Amino acid sequence: MIKITLPDGSVREYENGVTSIDIAKSISEGLARKVLAAEINGNVSDATIPLTNDSSLKLLTWDDLGGKSTFWHSSAHLMAEAVQELFPGVKFWVGPAIDKGFYYDMDLGDRKISEDDLLKLEKKMNELSKQNNSFIRKEISKKDAVDYFNKKGDEYKLDLIENLNDGEITFYSQGSFTDLCRGPHLPNTGFIKAIKLTSIAGAYWKGDEKNKQLTRIYGITFPNQKELDEYLIMLEEAKKRDHRKLGKELSIFAYDDEVGQGLPLWLPNGTVIIEELEKLAKETEKKAGYKRVVTPHIAKESLYLTSGHLPYYQDGMYPPMELDGTKYYLKAMNCPHHHKIFAAEPKSYKDLPLRLAEYGTCYRYEQSGELFGLMRVRCLHMNDAHIYCTREQFAEEFKAVNEMYTKYFKIFGIDKYVMRLSLHDPAKLGQKYIDEPELWLETEEMVRQVLKESNIPYIEVQDEGAFYGPKIDVQIWSAIGREFTLATNQVDFAQGKRFNLEFANKENGTENPLIIHRAPLGTHERFIGFLLEHYAGNLPTWIAPVQVKILPISDKFMDFAKEVRDKLFDEGIRVEIDDRSEKIGKKIRDTELLKIPYMLIIGEKEMTANAVSVRKHGKGDAGSLPVAEFLSEILTEIRERKGNI
Amino acid sequence: MIKITLPDGSVREYENGVTSIDIAKSISEGLARKVLAAEINGNVSDATIPLTNDSSLKLLTWDDLGGKSTFWHSSAHLMAEAVQELFPGVKFWVGPAIDKGFYYDMDLGDRKISEDDLLKLEKKMNELSKQNNSFIRKEISKKDAVDYFNKKGDEYKLDLIENLNDGEITFYSQGSFTDLCRGPHLPNTGFIKAIKLTSIAGAYWKGDEKNKQLTRIYGITFPNQKELDEYLIMLEEAKKRDHRKLGKELSIFAYDDEVGQGLPLWLPNGTVIIEELEKLAKETEKKAGYKRVVTPHIAKESLYLTSGHLPYYQDGMYPPMELDGTKYYLKAMNCPHHHKIFAAEPKSYKDLPLRLAEYGTCYRYEQSGELFGLMRVRCLHMNDAHIYCTREQFAEEFKAVNEMYTKYFKIFGIDKYVMRLSLHDPAKLGQKYIDEPELWLETEEMVRQVLKESNIPYIEVQDEGAFYGPKIDVQIWSAIGREFTLATNQVDFAQGKRFNLEFANKENGTENPLIIHRAPLGTHERFIGFLLEHYAGNLPTWIAPVQVKILPISDKFMDFAKEVRDKLFDEGIRVEIDDRSEKIGKKIRDTELLKIPYMLIIGEKEMTANAVSVRKHGKGDAGSLPVAEFLSEILTEIRERKGNI
Repeated sequence: MIKITLPDGSVREYENGVTSIDIAKSISEGLARKVLAAEINGNVSDATIPLTNDSSLKLLTWDDLGGKSTFWHSSAHLMAEAVQELFPGVKFWVGPAIDKGFYYDMDLGDRKISEDDLLKLEKKMNELSKQNNSFIRKEISKKDAVDYFNKKGDEYKLDLIENLNDGEITFYSQGSFTDLCRGPHLPNTGFIKAIKLTSIAGAYWKGDEKNKQLTRIYGITFPNQKELDEYLIMLEEAKKRDHRKLGKELSIFAYDDEVGQGLPLWLPNGTVIIEELEKLAKETEKKAGYKRVVTPHIAKESLYLTSGHLPYYQDGMYPPMELDGTKYYLKAMNCPHHHKIFAAEPKSYKDLPLRLAEYGTCYRYEQSGELFGLMRVRCLHMNDAHIYCTREQFAEEFKAVNEMYTKYFKIFGIDKYVMRLSLHDPAKLGQKYIDEPELWLETEEMVRQVLKESNIPYIEVQDEGAFYGPKIDVQIWSAIGREFTLATNQVDFAQGKRFNLEFANKENGTENPLIIHRAPLGTHERFIGFLLEHYAGNLPTWIAPVQVKILPISDKFMDFAKEVRDKLFDEGIRVEIDDRSEKIGKKIRDTELLKIPYMLIIGEKEMTANAVSVRKHGKGDAGSLPVAEFLSEILTEIRERKGNI
Repeated sequence: MIKITLPDGSVREYENGVTSIDIAKSISEGLARKVLAAEINGNVSDATIPLTNDSSLKLLTWDDLGGKSTFWHSSAHLMAEAVQELFPGVKFWVGPAIDKGFYYDMDLGDRKISEDDLLKLEKKMNELSKQNNSFIRKEISKKDAVDYFNKKGDEYKLDLIENLNDGEITFYSQGSFTDLCRGPHLPNTGFIKAIKLTSIAGAYWKGDEKNKQLTRIYGITFPNQKELDEYLIMLEEAKKRDHRKLGKELSIFAYDDEVGQGLPLWLPNGTVIIEELEKLAKETEKKAGYKRVVTPHIAKESLYLTSGHLPYYQDGMYPPMELDGTKYYLKAMNCPHHHKIFAAEPKSYKDLPLRLAEYGTCYRYEQSGELFGLMRVRCLHMNDAHIYCTREQFAEEFKAVNEMYTKYFKIFGIDKYVMRLSLHDPAKLGQKYIDEPELWLETEEMVRQVLKESNIPYIEVQDEGAFYGPKIDVQIWSAIGREFTLATNQVDFAQGKRFNLEFANKENGTENPLIIHRAPLGTHERFIGFLLEHYAGNLPTWIAPVQVKILPISDKFMDFAKEVRDKLFDEGIRVEIDDRSEKIGKKIRDTELLKIPYMLIIGEKEMTANAVSVRKHGKGDAGSLPVAEFLSEILTEIRERKGNI
């Protein structure tokens, strides 16, 4: 008998050689039908592999990352089987699961593959999946493996085998297809019930453009048709909501080759959004007792040697400017500058907590291949702040930070979010993690307690903390269900010491403060990219670059239109007149394209009544209102930052 | 007879050999007594030199820069004469007039000079000035000049003569002192009626630290005692108002060696001032139809090659960061980035005037010896904007910019200012100035007309325009009469073409816009430095970092103090409580030192009456007021940005 420890801590005894599927069945048949793979002693493995030792076991289903990636990796094999049937003689390189779905790179010889072929392949894959063929794992010697692929004339797999040793080579077969593969895989192909091959691309062998170009086919699969349908709708919707497309259509930002890649120029419309976000942050932070500071964008090398960012983070920074024998670096983070502000004047416990906030602009050198719209940039306007506090103050401060996050989520209609709490690994103290075992446990527990008490959804991840303390990555989902990593929230016991930051405590001794790094709104770049997708460009009135467009029916009403415009403008509303000599229908259509929240149509009737006919973007006619009444309503909507999701 | 043209355009005839003094006498004896030098055909010369050709003539008095510099240069000679009498054997290097006063560098051998010696020298100078000795000019051959100083054993003057040629060497003598000098000088020493030697410093010969260190004596002189007294009082006051001293006392800014010289860290108090200035600018610019943009702080080399800043301005910029074969520069100005925003989307005449504003942060590499507090820094937050307009729109736009300047001057109680209009030199078209003779004359005349119509005090300066158009430097005087160069306002016809900026005109052709560069509030750094001196640190309430300090007489009144604090805070007032267990007298004294505009004293009487006892900074008791009434008054004061000068 062997002992199996389940995630809830319970221990069960089974016959030696039992499989994870068997164990699932012993719990419930329903569970067993959902098991895709198993995490055995921390490693994701086939659910069909026999267990021969005492082990910890987590059964993996579609709800687990390990379950999904096994599902997609098996789908890649299924696709390969289909390709082999339709295009005999094809040779395969590698076919991994990716973030969403899978791909396989292949050498099709002189054949070209078409969109039509993808449909044929999908059909074949559906046939093969219905055969419920088992994925069969076989350990094989290097010699036998080489013989096998030599016989097949497959130079690609031979190249892979070259780097493997006896004892670590396995084959997986399903139906008529056999592949060199370390696994794991699904029990059988029958799990794969909904299939979509999404695109064809070229990919150089081993990513080297001097090598032959292979064909890459991307696909995604699901355990049922409904999920696939939802995914395809989301994909379609995401394409419409692409922040790069909306950013251009709505004149939010632009790139210029002479300025540089990853360095967005914020056009007037984008700058309105930036300023509204900053206003929100400043208001919120002012109420929460933050003080604002302004620091330069550069500093001498020695600052980053003190902080430890040099040499460890050097690759992420722009190279230095060397001058009069001194190296200056563009800042990639604001913390060292803020620490210097803390240090600029003597501090006592009465000055704590000290919360220093700055919408600091940082520069990070992302590889040009990594750059993507506003999501991956080289210039980051960060909603940054550092809270310097005593240990006693920590829990309350940390709780307040979390509440600020959730307050923002509410304003922006972000319903789904999770905080990913990254912890240290006690085995790596003094290497990957600062050697303060008690502080680690203490702050991790404090953080955990705050998250629990605040009913914030969170998950814990081992061995992913920052060097100087536990770290929380905040993940949010947009209205169409796409996931974004927004911001981090970190506890720091190290920098206070490294920078000799001290405060006089009540006993007239000196202590180093704890530091919380936080950035609830992340960077303007990523957050505005997110908002464009989240709102499909239909920004709520308070943050919309133009809030009201006045559409006079003819030039006769221009004076009244200007009168209304001036009234709104004087109250701070962002308002424009469409003064073109166009028909009202065209004016309405053009304004709809600009996604301006309100259109005010002005003709004879409105002028006589000192009123406006209101149209809401995407919702059409909202009736006629006296000017004063419309003004009062829109001012309330803006003041309360009403959402539209 | 020769013809003399005076500045008002009138032409008078005089005998050949007439002197400027003679001409002054022919106009009025009073004028003649005030003439210090003469500008003959554009060159500043002795007023006693005979005129032998038709000439243009401007008589220079104490009110002219050329008059003052002649006065101070002659004062340097007078000081040298006094030094020679008191310290025989001294050798002199150079003794120029400077911005305020003069200095002379000298080799005193082994002698050390003391503060006491300065008094002795002043006394001797007063004696010598009363002798009314004439300054006598003598042309001399190089050989005779060399002989003279060889005999004297004066290696310094011999060094100077080495670089001169026959025909350009003159000696000036007064009393017993003769100097190699190109002049010009006063008619005689009697003009110098009030004398102050201000300081002694060391100065390496020729500014090279490998050379011998000479003694430099600084001084200043005036035509009457009253002006000297006023100047000394101003100097004393300026010392008290030194922005570096106040900046430290009031926690406005700090420097840190690890961040770098000339790179200020703005502490929370300083940041409040920055934010209030930005709020003022944004409000003002929004009303004036500006649109805001945000641009990165770096750009590729090619942007600055297009703008022409490279290589011409390279010395003023930080060196490049070179990466993946591309050079990136920190921006030293915002214009090229703004031009790229103009170019990001097609423009038509309907889009003009387009006014793009940004509080852009620029970096300029000033030599470390030039750095001075907030006045000369390497990081500049600039109240920048660029106005793109048609020629027809120019005058109105330029007028609006000037009105914005004067509006700001009014808010800050700046009564004395002058706009210094720098023009081109037609002889240098195509070299120093872009070769558009008509555009130069047209825009210079437009600018001149606007200045005249707006009744703005201005002076014209030949041959100091920018490369791309006429330039206005704005000079202001602080409350104690010190002069500051605040900002520039420039017309630009060149960059529009260099950057291929185009708009579709009414005739469907394309044109380049004219561009106005403007920065009425200059940089935060210099403007806040100015404000600290101007207000002696007593900032008006609207811009004061802390506006109200609540001083409870004892802990018994703390709850009421907090209630008052919360009421003020909720209305956006920057308020703090002095919660120390100190006597009220000490609390008041300490708050006075922090120059906080209002103190609210709270005791039994106040609590009972729901009132506060108000003390205004520097003005003492202002009586008791109900809380609501005080709140309403201070809110009005802040909203109206009331000044205190």
